[in-house]
Amino acid sequence: MGERGAAVAAALVTASGPLPARGAAAPAAAVPDAGLAWDDEGMIVYAGPSSGLPWPARVGSPETGCLVPGFVDCHVHLPFFGWRSDEFEARLRGVSYRELHGEEGGIFRSSRMLAEAPDERVLAFCQRLVAEMAASGTTALELKTGYGLSVEAELRQARLARALAERAPQTCTVTLLACHAVPKGLSRAEWVAAACEELIPAAAAEELADAVDVYVEDIAFSLEDLERVAEAAAAARLPLRVHADQLGPSAAAEAAVRLGARSADHLNHLSRDGVEALGAAEATVAGLLPASTFFLRAPAPPVAALREAGAAIAIATDFNPGTSPVCSMPEAIAMACTVYGLEPLVALTASTANPAWVLGLGDRLGTLEPGKRADFLLLEEAGFAQVPYRPGHDPVVATFVGGRHVAGRVLH
Amino acid sequence: MGERGAAVAAALVTASGPLPARGAAAPAAAVPDAGLAWDDEGMIVYAGPSSGLPWPARVGSPETGCLVPGFVDCHVHLPFFGWRSDEFEARLRGVSYRELHGEEGGIFRSSRMLAEAPDERVLAFCQRLVAEMAASGTTALELKTGYGLSVEAELRQARLARALAERAPQTCTVTLLACHAVPKGLSRAEWVAAACEELIPAAAAEELADAVDVYVEDIAFSLEDLERVAEAAAAARLPLRVHADQLGPSAAAEAAVRLGARSADHLNHLSRDGVEALGAAEATVAGLLPASTFFLRAPAPPVAALREAGAAIAIATDFNPGTSPVCSMPEAIAMACTVYGLEPLVALTASTANPAWVLGLGDRLGTLEPGKRADFLLLEEAGFAQVPYRPGHDPVVATFVGGRHVAGRVLH
Repeated sequence: MGERGAAVAAALVTASGPLPARGAAAPAAAVPDAGLAWDDEGMIVYAGPSSGLPWPARVGSPETGCLVPGFVDCHVHLPFFGWRSDEFEARLRGVSYRELHGEEGGIFRSSRMLAEAPDERVLAFCQRLVAEMAASGTTALELKTGYGLSVEAELRQARLARALAERAPQTCTVTLLACHAVPKGLSRAEWVAAACEELIPAAAAEELADAVDVYVEDIAFSLEDLERVAEAAAAARLPLRVHADQLGPSAAAEAAVRLGARSADHLNHLSRDGVEALGAAEATVAGLLPASTFFLRAPAPPVAALREAGAAIAIATDFNPGTSPVCSMPEAIAMACTVYGLEPLVALTASTANPAWVLGLGDRLGTLEPGKRADFLLLEEAGFAQVPYRPGHDPVVATFVGGRHVAGRVLH
Repeated sequence: MGERGAAVAAALVTASGPLPARGAAAPAAAVPDAGLAWDDEGMIVYAGPSSGLPWPARVGSPETGCLVPGFVDCHVHLPFFGWRSDEFEARLRGVSYRELHGEEGGIFRSSRMLAEAPDERVLAFCQRLVAEMAASGTTALELKTGYGLSVEAELRQARLARALAERAPQTCTVTLLACHAVPKGLSRAEWVAAACEELIPAAAAEELADAVDVYVEDIAFSLEDLERVAEAAAAARLPLRVHADQLGPSAAAEAAVRLGARSADHLNHLSRDGVEALGAAEATVAGLLPASTFFLRAPAPPVAALREAGAAIAIATDFNPGTSPVCSMPEAIAMACTVYGLEPLVALTASTANPAWVLGLGDRLGTLEPGKRADFLLLEEAGFAQVPYRPGHDPVVATFVGGRHVAGRVLH
């Protein structure tokens, strides 16, 4: 049991209403001269004008700053072990991701580095990173497997993810990225069969996973593979996620919608049909990953068309050592606003409430309203626009999870 | 007088040789298991293998990290007062910089905010920013006027710049941006005459400026104006800088070379003739400002062609509240590598030695070699590539200016 508390600031900005909130129709609302109060279980009991606070605030100042929900990063390839900045340098000399993929670099290299590191070294490496994410405002995140590339190694990575979740200050969910790359020595069909018949049931039996993900791409897995994995996930009662249309158009987004996936992520080569499918989707969020777009110099997804079609959008880091070594949500938000043309308040909803829904946490966190968890940030300036306006600057004064101060400057 | 000292790290990376170093031909050199020593005047006396250190190191560890020269930010629109994130939001709704310019927003708004703020408030606002720049590794920087827009207000801004230089932990030079926008109520010719006949001589007489700059653009000043200002600058014995070819091609870069300017900056619309002029230039560096390119969604300058032509390049933030609210050199370097395709070691030279030359400081700082000032950074990882590889991450463990620890984590 913690202590009850309250915070004040010049403004409070949060999304609210039914989730997932849809594109242009769901800007966040700002309350000036605001207060937020939470009880001794870390649950919000009040969010509104500071005059209505049930007890005095000991965090923040009424003259300055902004209270916003903590960022929810719904696409994260942690746990991994070791960097690949040498591949980044190689790419700058003109060697492409496609050329690297399937050889000794890329996913296979991360797989080997993970396999060779003892559990404690992996956890120590990742704990520093989730601490850094907390400092830049991430209060809930996904952890993904996908660097195992065998049934046993995927299960080990899922166990490492659960262990990391125990040590992280944030709420973490675990996604089994059952199909990321075809393991060496197996055919694609053999690996899909192993993933569906062994990996997913074993992970579900051990309660290691909260969702299942597939990388659909001509260099990776097909729509038929996705259908098979979706069946196995449904049988294990696990929601589906999809890496869709990143390197080329494959109609994966349409399939994701048809299969009821929680999100279709990347979307750099989304077709007009894909836009319409996501626009009409009841339950599939368009996951925008601007940092990997930036790193790969990829075309931007059709974000304006998606919003016009009524799609719900989320922004995530895609944090991974190959194509998106960015773990800062402010950085991803800055890129989403400037490169994809999102207004700051739309980006706020897309980086809090909507990704909380994607991770199945929408009833517990992602907005600042009574009954949700007091996962919030005190930002330096009164307007949320300051976050995308100043890339490379740390806008977060302090990060709170469940009312507990987990990162940032001392406040009182 | 300070204390002599020494630092060690897994590597030391620095440019060396004649300045300005030219494009692809000037990668920085890396020394493994490295040491750096400085005397009690903060001057480097040794840079090389740690085995050759003249006295024991009390900073850093031989197992990890990297010693590099401090960043030199050669294009900075400080001092300014107040942010313009509302204009950033407006731009995301489709209102362009050109539409803003010349109305009440843009440069005129910053001019008004500066005019209305007392000196001490301006200095307090800017001191926080130069401290933030020190923490992200900037050890020397330019300060520019240009928000005065009258002779008296430009002189006041130059005095504020000198006062800020006194308080900043870094070395600061002051550039008189004599022609930034045409003041209201004057014709362009009237302002150019006032700048040349009153402002530049007065600033020189009071020793307020180290260089003179002109914004050449169809919405700002012409090549003929540049020629006139160049004459006035030469008469005052001040070097020239030029804002060139940012919003459209104007042959400003060719003029900058012909007039012996220290740099031609922006270059988003540089012509083939401009590439050749900068490639052949003895004394004019191509100033790359990737953060304003990013913010304005402008085309990238022809960086590969510039390097092939033999141009010397520099990377700077262009820090200003309108088109580049980025004061982090790591962020600018990350953008330059990924968006402009610069290899990390080329970017290191372009953010240390070459901008030091642009500011007229090349004989004193910008490289790690005996006789230069001990302006250096201890980076977290052994390779410089980690800086552009992880945008949004702070790679600087500690910043030293003249051997003095001015920012970053505690070390011993």
